[in-house]
Amino acid sequence: MPPPVLPQHMLSVEEARARILAGLQPTAAEMVGLSEAWDRVAAAPIAARLMHPPADVSAMDGYALHAVDGAPHAVLRVIGSAPAGHPFAGQVQRGEAVRVFTGSIIPAGLDGVLVQEDAIADGDQVTIRERVQTGKHIRLAGQDFRAGEVLVPAGRRLTARDIGAAAAANHPWIAVHRRPVVAILATGDEIALPGNPIPPGGIVSSNAHALAALVRAGGGQPLVLPIAPDDRAAIAAATATARTADLLLTTGGASVGTHDVVLSALQERGLELDFWKIAMRPGKPLMHGHVGEMPMIGLPGNPVSAIVCAVLFVLPALARLCGRTDTAVPLSRAVLGAPLPANDRRADHLRATLSPRDPQPPLVTPFPVQDSGMLARLAHSQALILRAPMAPPAQAGADVTVIRLDLLGI
Amino acid sequence: MPPPVLPQHMLSVEEARARILAGLQPTAAEMVGLSEAWDRVAAAPIAARLMHPPADVSAMDGYALHAVDGAPHAVLRVIGSAPAGHPFAGQVQRGEAVRVFTGSIIPAGLDGVLVQEDAIADGDQVTIRERVQTGKHIRLAGQDFRAGEVLVPAGRRLTARDIGAAAAANHPWIAVHRRPVVAILATGDEIALPGNPIPPGGIVSSNAHALAALVRAGGGQPLVLPIAPDDRAAIAAATATARTADLLLTTGGASVGTHDVVLSALQERGLELDFWKIAMRPGKPLMHGHVGEMPMIGLPGNPVSAIVCAVLFVLPALARLCGRTDTAVPLSRAVLGAPLPANDRRADHLRATLSPRDPQPPLVTPFPVQDSGMLARLAHSQALILRAPMAPPAQAGADVTVIRLDLLGI
Repeated sequence: MPPPVLPQHMLSVEEARARILAGLQPTAAEMVGLSEAWDRVAAAPIAARLMHPPADVSAMDGYALHAVDGAPHAVLRVIGSAPAGHPFAGQVQRGEAVRVFTGSIIPAGLDGVLVQEDAIADGDQVTIRERVQTGKHIRLAGQDFRAGEVLVPAGRRLTARDIGAAAAANHPWIAVHRRPVVAILATGDEIALPGNPIPPGGIVSSNAHALAALVRAGGGQPLVLPIAPDDRAAIAAATATARTADLLLTTGGASVGTHDVVLSALQERGLELDFWKIAMRPGKPLMHGHVGEMPMIGLPGNPVSAIVCAVLFVLPALARLCGRTDTAVPLSRAVLGAPLPANDRRADHLRATLSPRDPQPPLVTPFPVQDSGMLARLAHSQALILRAPMAPPAQAGADVTVIRLDLLGI
Repeated sequence: MPPPVLPQHMLSVEEARARILAGLQPTAAEMVGLSEAWDRVAAAPIAARLMHPPADVSAMDGYALHAVDGAPHAVLRVIGSAPAGHPFAGQVQRGEAVRVFTGSIIPAGLDGVLVQEDAIADGDQVTIRERVQTGKHIRLAGQDFRAGEVLVPAGRRLTARDIGAAAAANHPWIAVHRRPVVAILATGDEIALPGNPIPPGGIVSSNAHALAALVRAGGGQPLVLPIAPDDRAAIAAATATARTADLLLTTGGASVGTHDVVLSALQERGLELDFWKIAMRPGKPLMHGHVGEMPMIGLPGNPVSAIVCAVLFVLPALARLCGRTDTAVPLSRAVLGAPLPANDRRADHLRATLSPRDPQPPLVTPFPVQDSGMLARLAHSQALILRAPMAPPAQAGADVTVIRLDLLGI
């Protein structure tokens, strides 16, 4: 078999990400109960089905009255009470008042609330200590929201507050995007899952389950395939089992070594290769294409490179598949804790620790050795410092842009 | 029944939080599979069960050789290949080399790697173009981590990278703290769950499910009890069903209104009240105590107050129950987008929008009206601006401390 023909141009990180996103569509909607909708992505705007408050209500504990009766020293007769859920149905005449509480419906015709602290109660009489102002301490019907008003836009990952708003808007069911299924295929003769027998000269596989966790953090459903040996037929067969996935991630086999067989195996399965090289470090060999309808991202086998590439490319891909309108990985600001040399033509992503200095931006200190074999160091990092291609040297104290891994659950 | 005796002193937010945390213990450990351990809290340190790399390995594709043979223009005989997972078992003499790849074990006795780009291969011969330096491009055994080294400390909410490190350290099972069960009891004659019939003058209940989502965001397992009417016996009975929970949250019934029956119902059940007033806004009436062994937090019925209080008190409580060593709600820095008047004696928590200005700190703009009845506005907020008691006026452009709700899934 002839070696595959490969495009040699190295893409920028931004161009590569844009090309990956361009090949992805959000999943279709499913209906889930409100109690299961947290952290899912709304597939349609959530509009209010009623107005809130449903009527004029009291904002305080006190007495509802005709505001014109609300002069200091006036004495009113308390003719009833209207606790929340038990509106006062009668007519209230001048000189009369009704006991109300926060959330009580203001009885018909009344326009003033005497707050409890400004009242002297004595049996069925109440004496006014402070002038009552018309409309004060009354929340008007619809002041919070009106029927038809959109409270949560489509494409939003639902927060606890969104769930509260959807509840108040009377939605027991929410249309959300189906969680995208992301198949994960780790390849290599030398790897074994934790606790399984380790082959001679082999190591424990860490990529598949780290990536599965990242997929969960990004809102997807991981499908971890059995490890495939470095064998074209085995890899092709594994890919076939993944064909209903919304995205296939492979790890290993994306560099130029003789034993990197993922590319040729996928080409046997009809891979249309989009690109395979990015001007970045760690992780230059990153493959992207489609196998039939299924998009695939081929991550490096090196665990550090795999995770860094997954943060830069898989997380935005997940956001797009989940239907999120915001696909960008959030960037933060930090202050450099050690000088950095000028960068070369590859965008760099330096593993670093953060020292919080609330409310100041945190201090970010890169590890002096950035060997991509150092998995423990990656686990101990809290941030990646982004270094643009050809960035000039940076002094300690300089502002830098970072990705805060700790905030992403990654 | 006489009115309950209540301590009248208003606590500071910090004092109240410290008293809540002092009454809580982390849950016990359970064993979960590595694939289920993401976002759980490690109940024990995760130490490496082996060293990594397990032997000296190549960091590059190329040729392993005796470094003393690595002079420019020298020609070596390639006597074998050592792909990852297939170590070369033979002896390598002076003048000989073995083909290696990233991750390949360096054959015994060799101490140099000629990288592929610096080699000219011709059949079983390879010509050296650049001098090979002793030890360069070799990752030494144990360079990443050694057996027994702690890779993940106890008390850490496990990230995707931690899962990768635990995998590489050969752990198929992880000891994590059991998810704390948080019972949620919404009370009130006037409320109904979404989609259910709404009582006359009533509203749709939003607190229970917003709090359930917050409990999930904080790592707990919500147990949403049926809504209890404003009736002592019903509330006492509901509390009894919650007695195996790790924490009881009530919502409603924590202010001084005549119809606030939660307190007296819980006192019938043996509530030991710790405090019930905090010098804060929104949400002054917040109750804390224990019913038997079970800690309880009584949140205000107002949805905005309930969520703000939950962020300030329930999230740290969850962190403690989950066994996390970091219980603090993360604070961020932002630049004020509008002036603020001086504050009174109550700590304030202003609902605000954020305008990202990466990599600068975001601009935070408080809503001009901070009515705690405005649930839609809370859902549209991205941050709470923290205003200390007696804070002086602040100009637009001033640095302020905020809680970024958007980053918390809340």
